[in-house]
Amino acid sequence: MKLTGVSIIGFRRGAPTGTSFFAVNPTTGEPLEPTYYSASRAELEEAVQLAARAFATYAQTSGHQRAAFLRQIAINIEALGDALLERVAQETALPIPRLQAERARTCFQLRLFADLVEEGSWVDARIDRADPTRQPVPKPDVRSLLRPLGPVAVFGASNFPLAFSVAGGDTASALAAGNPVLVKAHPAHPGTSEMVGLAIIEAAHACSMPEGVFSLLFDAGTDIGRALVTHPEVRAVAFTGSRAAGLALMAEAASRPDPIPFYAEMSSVNPIFILPGALRERGEQIAMGLYASVTLGAGQFCTKPGVVLIEEGAASSPFIEKLAELIAQTPPFTLLTAGIGATYRRALEERSHHPVVTLLAPRSTSALEATSLGCSAYAALFQTDAQSYLVHPDLGQEIFGPATLLVTYSRREHLLDIARAMEGQLTASLHGTEDDLLAFRDLIAILETKVGRLIFNGFPTGVEVCHAMVHGGPFPATSDGRSTSVGTRAIYRFTRPVCYQNFPNAALPDELKDENPLGIWRLVDGRWTREPLNATGE
Amino acid sequence: MKLTGVSIIGFRRGAPTGTSFFAVNPTTGEPLEPTYYSASRAELEEAVQLAARAFATYAQTSGHQRAAFLRQIAINIEALGDALLERVAQETALPIPRLQAERARTCFQLRLFADLVEEGSWVDARIDRADPTRQPVPKPDVRSLLRPLGPVAVFGASNFPLAFSVAGGDTASALAAGNPVLVKAHPAHPGTSEMVGLAIIEAAHACSMPEGVFSLLFDAGTDIGRALVTHPEVRAVAFTGSRAAGLALMAEAASRPDPIPFYAEMSSVNPIFILPGALRERGEQIAMGLYASVTLGAGQFCTKPGVVLIEEGAASSPFIEKLAELIAQTPPFTLLTAGIGATYRRALEERSHHPVVTLLAPRSTSALEATSLGCSAYAALFQTDAQSYLVHPDLGQEIFGPATLLVTYSRREHLLDIARAMEGQLTASLHGTEDDLLAFRDLIAILETKVGRLIFNGFPTGVEVCHAMVHGGPFPATSDGRSTSVGTRAIYRFTRPVCYQNFPNAALPDELKDENPLGIWRLVDGRWTREPLNATGE
Repeated sequence: MKLTGVSIIGFRRGAPTGTSFFAVNPTTGEPLEPTYYSASRAELEEAVQLAARAFATYAQTSGHQRAAFLRQIAINIEALGDALLERVAQETALPIPRLQAERARTCFQLRLFADLVEEGSWVDARIDRADPTRQPVPKPDVRSLLRPLGPVAVFGASNFPLAFSVAGGDTASALAAGNPVLVKAHPAHPGTSEMVGLAIIEAAHACSMPEGVFSLLFDAGTDIGRALVTHPEVRAVAFTGSRAAGLALMAEAASRPDPIPFYAEMSSVNPIFILPGALRERGEQIAMGLYASVTLGAGQFCTKPGVVLIEEGAASSPFIEKLAELIAQTPPFTLLTAGIGATYRRALEERSHHPVVTLLAPRSTSALEATSLGCSAYAALFQTDAQSYLVHPDLGQEIFGPATLLVTYSRREHLLDIARAMEGQLTASLHGTEDDLLAFRDLIAILETKVGRLIFNGFPTGVEVCHAMVHGGPFPATSDGRSTSVGTRAIYRFTRPVCYQNFPNAALPDELKDENPLGIWRLVDGRWTREPLNATGE
Repeated sequence: MKLTGVSIIGFRRGAPTGTSFFAVNPTTGEPLEPTYYSASRAELEEAVQLAARAFATYAQTSGHQRAAFLRQIAINIEALGDALLERVAQETALPIPRLQAERARTCFQLRLFADLVEEGSWVDARIDRADPTRQPVPKPDVRSLLRPLGPVAVFGASNFPLAFSVAGGDTASALAAGNPVLVKAHPAHPGTSEMVGLAIIEAAHACSMPEGVFSLLFDAGTDIGRALVTHPEVRAVAFTGSRAAGLALMAEAASRPDPIPFYAEMSSVNPIFILPGALRERGEQIAMGLYASVTLGAGQFCTKPGVVLIEEGAASSPFIEKLAELIAQTPPFTLLTAGIGATYRRALEERSHHPVVTLLAPRSTSALEATSLGCSAYAALFQTDAQSYLVHPDLGQEIFGPATLLVTYSRREHLLDIARAMEGQLTASLHGTEDDLLAFRDLIAILETKVGRLIFNGFPTGVEVCHAMVHGGPFPATSDGRSTSVGTRAIYRFTRPVCYQNFPNAALPDELKDENPLGIWRLVDGRWTREPLNATGE
């Protein structure tokens, strides 16, 4: 595939006229061909208008048609073969096996949403039948289902160039629900974005989808993103990235004349609670698992454990020593971009000089300074105590990269205080024995109000794509704690209920017709059933 | 029951020290005893802290326990008997039969949510089972369900003193989901609010609910409402009222350091499309139905039809004449408050002098001026044409009270243009033959993107409380078009999903335990079932 460096505006291509930029190989620091060009405002306008027009058609496609489209996207991505993986590796420095797994996850996700909309019950179809004899007024026939919102803007993330990017979970769920998608490509992997974007366009052609069902916009800066969030025809936004960028766009969405749903997955320190029984029984083993989780993908996961809580005392020593040793022995990582590298090194610098923090690994700050080149960065382990942590809320901020903070507590109540004071998080993990779980039931009750996902004897990295997954959490982990960006529940972000009262059967959407032609689950007079309504009204 | 005039702060009462106010009988203009006192900031703080503490206990109550509580509230409201209805009638000038129906609806609603949470399947329980043999990594056990958010602030509405007020749909759905509720009473019916609030407190005592599960705050002004929306412990807000008030509070919720879900049902003109076939067949009959809908409750319904679209020509004359005649013959109404009366009369005054609008009934503007006393107001019928309507967006604004605007069109395309230009609405109604429905399929497709509920051959007033109802709609009909404030789907407003990964069975919520002790519907490995998980993993 020949990369051209211009945006994809419906079925056409943009012009090579906007501000130019290059992808950079994080390992070498060298720019990668070709030159990329920011979309113009006119191109953006055209893409949005095409999306708005496409909505009228695309929203009326059947679940079967959308399933075929999603599956074709997966097939086309797989057909890109090694050329895609090589480009992603060049743009991100992520190792090929990780990228193979991420591609598999991306395609699995597209097929999972295809299965969901083909089966069709996801629309939450509800029917309450009429009762003309009811007193004092007759009861009408009322039926409702979920419908798509309209054009959705999706922001590609730097750290998952496939699974949270052009054809990632946001795009898959928005398309599955019947919404056209406008992706703002992440400038760190434009070549990857263009390849995947063209795979989507080919699938749109193959499946006779309307022009505008998908567009891909490049931008070196933030103008295009802001213009998407504030455009009157854009009806919802999905974003994955930093808290600062997420909050800025969230404020734009809220201050529109017509505020729209805005889903940002922003930041999380994913606390790990290592309870006393588990610490005694298998401290070193947990240290090895934690090390793997903190350094996975060079620590550039939104679910990376950033705070680890353990009880002070003899039982903690083997754990701490093992973890410090593993981190001290780790050669430097190559982070995704020079910007992420610089921010990470600055955060390490600050934290290593923090008055209440000790640097446990590497052994000296001079090792940290030795990393101060481009994308290269050492893993780091810091330590503080619970009382200091409680009075320094800055220690609860995410450091994006392979660093984590041990917090030791001497009193159970401090642990609970930390949980109570915690900001909203994507996850919290508990390592414990079954006795620990009973003894810390109060901790779990607090955490249930703070996080989207609670993990027992495991680590938060590696988010399973399935029906039950919740990859979300109270603000500021996300902008909207009612939602998840992973798993089939993610489709509900881009829908709203529409109700039909006393409509003739023929004029109803298929999902609500008496005969239940799609054979879906429906709530009929308060009971879930896949049966058609019969003529007797029973 | 002796009314005391002070707020209800958990299980105690506030002090008679804040700014005082009276309910006013709209018919006589006389103040009603007793004096009411605005809650102090200290009282508000105490109520919110009690709610935050109650949440820990209340969120853990079972569906059975919450069902008993909701049913006891209904029983206690019914036990207030005629004394309640008389007080409501004094405070609102609404006729007793209407209030009997509204009380029945309110109690039905409480019992419907009781049934919902007792049955229990509403929590959307999902289970994806582990697969330790999966390659390249084992699949974890992932389970999730919906959990309550925390203390919810509810604003009582003036126009439904029972069904959208202290124990109305917002309170019922928030309590059903497991959230404590803080109601800000509408100052136009404080006696009604106090009586119903005490009925809730008695139910809380009888059902051993924690103190703080409910509080009721009075305020002559807007301070308490704003303080609730911005309080850190308040986790969601439900509001029904004017667009101006709704937008102001919506902005407060969005500009919090931690924005929270804010559900406002604001304004809607509920357009009525009378299609050509129906106009010819039964124009006069539709005129009578429309008249009843426009004047129901003195036009003070959020679903009152405010814009009526009909084709110009001979067929329209009998319809227009009938409607104008009915409205011209109508004696003046007593509106809810002098404020509503003054706003309504000012709106009629403006509209009757609008350059593109004709007043059809009453026959002269002098009749309108004759109503300019207190709460008294005449019904009014205005007319304009489609092209004028399209260039005067002010004509699309709601007039709260018994007035409506006929818009005649000569070209089908103008009708579609009006639908396309329309703001988000709660409802749209189509009067037509089955042929009309086919001929105006494009109109229906537009309306599906604009409204929460589409009604065929009926009127939007009278919102059925049922599972399939959608009383919501795109902004600015509501602040959040993904929600409904009526019907069992309303419970989802006050929930978020929480996920448990690899948890021991005993530590899971009952809804997610292997044996399915509650017998609820669950999505197990993508299939809906009420069966327990069996030991073989099948």
